[in-house]
Amino acid sequence: MSSLSPVPSGPSRWEKLGESTQATTRVFEVMSAHYRHPVRGTKRDFVVLRAPDWVNVLALTPDERIVLVRQFRFGVDAFSLEIPGGVMDEGEDPVAAGLRELREETGFAGRGARLLGSVHPNPAIQSNRCHIVFVEDAVRTEALEWDADEEMEISTLAADEVFALARQGGITHGLVLNALLLFEPLWRERKGRGV
Amino acid sequence: MSSLSPVPSGPSRWEKLGESTQATTRVFEVMSAHYRHPVRGTKRDFVVLRAPDWVNVLALTPDERIVLVRQFRFGVDAFSLEIPGGVMDEGEDPVAAGLRELREETGFAGRGARLLGSVHPNPAIQSNRCHIVFVEDAVRTEALEWDADEEMEISTLAADEVFALARQGGITHGLVLNALLLFEPLWRERKGRGV
Repeated sequence: MSSLSPVPSGPSRWEKLGESTQATTRVFEVMSAHYRHPVRGTKRDFVVLRAPDWVNVLALTPDERIVLVRQFRFGVDAFSLEIPGGVMDEGEDPVAAGLRELREETGFAGRGARLLGSVHPNPAIQSNRCHIVFVEDAVRTEALEWDADEEMEISTLAADEVFALARQGGITHGLVLNALLLFEPLWRERKGRGV
Repeated sequence: MSSLSPVPSGPSRWEKLGESTQATTRVFEVMSAHYRHPVRGTKRDFVVLRAPDWVNVLALTPDERIVLVRQFRFGVDAFSLEIPGGVMDEGEDPVAAGLRELREETGFAGRGARLLGSVHPNPAIQSNRCHIVFVEDAVRTEALEWDADEEMEISTLAADEVFALARQGGITHGLVLNALLLFEPLWRERKGRGV
């Protein structure tokens, strides 16, 4: 990596002095995090959303299709095409959480479940991570268990078509696109092997 | 797409009745959005973060390296390796905003700037979008204009190494990973052409 930094010592690690809750919602807490700059000595408050970790599941059917859900999303006041996912329970393992969300939202179960990676939805203002779980040989065997207010259209789409759709703007959920980025090398390898 | 929906008519479009501000911060407003389910008639409030649109810039140097910034991020209380980006001004064009952020944060300017696509950082709870701008032939010609509290290490890294790093967990910012997903077909095409 070629560094071109105007700060020879690099950017400073701010010192966290504490934090206080500004507002509480069903989905996250709004915190005010109190920081001090170690060189300048200035004290500043920054807004941070505290939420549990989230999980997304990329589930591939035996015929190499990805399990999708389409649901109404209140943030954008519109429908959104996504992979299954949700909020992890406290202390829950990401892979277990992924399998739980897949089962509850779609009735699908599979095998070979494993973590593809974990991302920060927004490290500037959110403390939590979103874990991305891969499941193969996913088939619909279980009963749905939707939360109150959940209502989804469940479908499957050939993996190549999902990538094309994502790059044409048909899938816009950033965390779903993250799952596709992490899945793509594995997908290319599977296609190369003719799985 | 094979639909497997248990709801024959598909999920309902909830009817928005209004919204009210729950909390205001420097980065977003926390709204309570009031909705009514069109079939069940139930009324429910959902939390929505209202923020301006954001922009991220994938800037490629003449020797095919990506411009990166490393900065301390308060959400995760840690350093994060990212591409340049920030908050768009009201009424600002995404490409203009991308070029502005690139210049202010890194001093780089380029040519052929264009929109690669736009994503929703989180359609479940956020109304805004993040636009992803591509710039080529980026070189460092301008003076930095950091905001108060901004402090970055600026570097460049070969594009293939950036993709590898992203898939190994060295880049975890979800919106930066979105830029890589949208850039990848263009990158493969450039490599194939031997640009």
